This record gives sequence, C-alpha cells and structure tokens, in this order.
Amino acid sequence: MAPRSIVAPERRGRLIAIEGIDGCGKSTQTALLAERIGAEATFEPGATELGASLRELLLQRSARISARSEALLMIADRAQHVEEVVRPALERGMWVVTDRFSASTLAYQGTGRGLQPSVLKELIDWATSGLWPDLVVLLDVPTSLARERLRGSRADRLELLGDGFQERVRRGFLAQAMNHPESWAVVDAARPAEVVASEVATIVQSRLGSLDADHRR
Amino acid sequence: MAPRSIVAPERRGRLIAIEGIDGCGKSTQTALLAERIGAEATFEPGATELGASLRELLLQRSARISARSEALLMIADRAQHVEEVVRPALERGMWVVTDRFSASTLAYQGTGRGLQPSVLKELIDWATSGLWPDLVVLLDVPTSLARERLRGSRADRLELLGDGFQERVRRGFLAQAMNHPESWAVVDAARPAEVVASEVATIVQSRLGSLDADHRR
Repeated sequence: MAPRSIVAPERRGRLIAIEGIDGCGKSTQTALLAERIGAEATFEPGATELGASLRELLLQRSARISARSEALLMIADRAQHVEEVVRPALERGMWVVTDRFSASTLAYQGTGRGLQPSVLKELIDWATSGLWPDLVVLLDVPTSLARERLRGSRADRLELLGDGFQERVRRGFLAQAMNHPESWAVVDAARPAEVVASEVATIVQSRLGSLDADHRR
Repeated sequence: MAPRSIVAPERRGRLIAIEGIDGCGKSTQTALLAERIGAEATFEPGATELGASLRELLLQRSARISARSEALLMIADRAQHVEEVVRPALERGMWVVTDRFSASTLAYQGTGRGLQPSVLKELIDWATSGLWPDLVVLLDVPTSLARERLRGSRADRLELLGDGFQERVRRGFLAQAMNHPESWAVVDAARPAEVVASEVATIVQSRLGSLDADHRR
C-alpha cells in the first residue's frame, strides 16, 4: 500500500516527518521548523513513556535483537506515539513535526536489514491506523559527512553497523522519495543549518499552503 | 491463514504449546510434560534477554500501552523467542514445550482486546517465519476457579482487566480449539495436576506418535 494522506474532514492538523540518516541534522531542523510554524515537535523512537523504554532497549549496544523483533519494536513505539501524541494533536488542529516516522522503518529495517518493504508497509499501516505524513522532508547528506558530524558522540547499536549499512539506509530513503514525489521533498542537508531551515520552510509553505493561525498553539 | 505445521525434512523436533488463561496450571503442566518426554521447556513472554525486558514493560501495572502496541510487543517477544530459543532447539532435533505461544496473542489481543484475528495471524506468521505448533494443548478452567487459584498473588496488568476480559480470553481459546481440531486438544484442567498431566501425556503420545530417544537431551 502506498503512503497516502488521510486527512479526514474533522482533522485539521498536518503531519510533517523529517527523515534521514543519523547526523543529517534532523533534530535541529525539526525544532527550527516547529518553532517557525508553531507546530508541535516530537520524535521517534521514544516520545512516550513506553517508547522511552523501547528506545533504550533498541539502541543499547549489547542488545541481541533479531531483524523482525527490531521492526516490531519500532512499530510498537510508533503505534503508541500515534495514539498518545500525534493523533490527539492533529485532532486538536495542531500541526505536528516529527523527527523520524514510518519512512525510517522502511529505510532501516527494510532497505538496511533486508526485510520486505511491502510487509513492513502493511504492518505500519495497521499500527498507525493508516496515518501517513502529509509531507516527508528528507535531509540528504553523504554518509561520510554524517559520520564526520557524529564524531565524538558514542555510536548506538544501529550506528555501529557501519558505512555499508548507512549507505543502504540512505539509498532506501532516496528510493522512497523518488517513488512518492507528491508527498516527499529531498533537501541537500550538507549546507549550513540556517540555509537548510529556510529551504525546508519554503517547501512546507509551497506544499501544504499558507499557515494560518488556527493550528498554532 | 490457518495455523499449520511446517515440519521441514531437516527439522526433527516438535513444538507443543500449552495454553490457557492465567491460573489454569500452564507452567506446572509445561514443566511436567517437558520432564516426562525429555523436551526443552520454555515460555512467553520473556524467555530471552530482550523478552525479559519486554515482559517487564508489558505486565507492569501502571504501563500505558495501546492495544496495537501490546500486540506488537508480544509478537516481538515471540520473534526473538523463535529465533534465539525455539527454532535452534527444533533444528537440533529437540522437542520443545512452551508455556504460551501464538494462540495467546489471538486470545488476549484478538478476542480479549478486539483486534482483528486475521491481521494478528498474518503478523504472527511473519514474525515467526511461519512456525506454528505441531500440537496446542488448551488447559481449560472456569474463570472463577482460575481467580481462586491466583488469590494471594499480585495481579499483573492483564490480570487486572477483570472477569469479563478473562471470560472473553477463555472463549477465544475455545474457539481456536474448535476451529482447529487437528492440531488442538482441550483438557479439563479443573482436576488435580497429576490427573491433568497424565491426560496431557496421553494426548501428546497419541497425536505426535511414539517418543523415540533421538529428541532427548
């Protein structure tokens, strides 16, 4: 099933996902965009109490976790995130900007780990009750630059998988963007943060229309 | 998809699941049967390191977990259990007796929580790479007797859901047994443990054939 927008009449908020490999600048750009448009900023995995425990399990370096378990845990985190945080905000009319969402599962556990994307999509669709982002912004950077930016921070379990894995994940994101140009935008995120932020804001404005006051906190 | 046995030519071990509501005597009967036939005894959720953490999350009384997250976490535990414990044992030729397996998800998260059984079955089939038990033994007891047996132990998050929920779960198990008589057996588990154990052993013998020495530890 293709990602789709399911804006119901009563749902006024919009969901924007910021995606990309670690070190691409997602958390910075999520915060800047949310601030700029008065949206709620959130993230995956780990934005709920359950999710925080799952995040700890998923990223600890010693964890022995099969590819399918890893996918199921990421999607369990998302199910809780959608039910507890994202959908309530959208239903209140808020716009929501999330640092990672379903595309990350398709890139990391699909292209990265080799699980079948069609199965993952069905699983995600069920777990989120069909909530796909209105817009996905991919912050694309070469893996070498991402690695450079992350130097000095302690790598987590997924970052430890090395450049071959990160390269597959990057290609997984780019392939999704190519397959869904109507809901995706790719931004060159090798540039300075303020340049990227300005381009992201322009894209949001042109894709999702004028931001009126009624979605602001 | 109907539960099925997928005994591959190279897989000599058999998988037996002991199922039923809390208080039906599963853990006792699992241990007795495994001892009797020289099988490996295991359980869900929580038999792996990952699973132990998930079990803690799932059963803590205060946890806020949506129905779909709960199902995904139970199935993530099973994926890890199958990959790390069950399948390796079966491939070594061991027989495996597990205290709970996929039927519990269908009864608790399906009939109990109201999630669609067909979706849960597909999910489970994917998570286990199609491993369904060769035999499921349902230890059936009235919920009133189960409650009586559990008196004095501290109820976990699922037990706290009350008699209406337990009754739905019991009916969920019985319905599965009726729909799959070829791979299920229902045992009246209101009787003394040694009587139940003897009947379970007879059923295993008649359904799965003579136990020869090559599966023993």
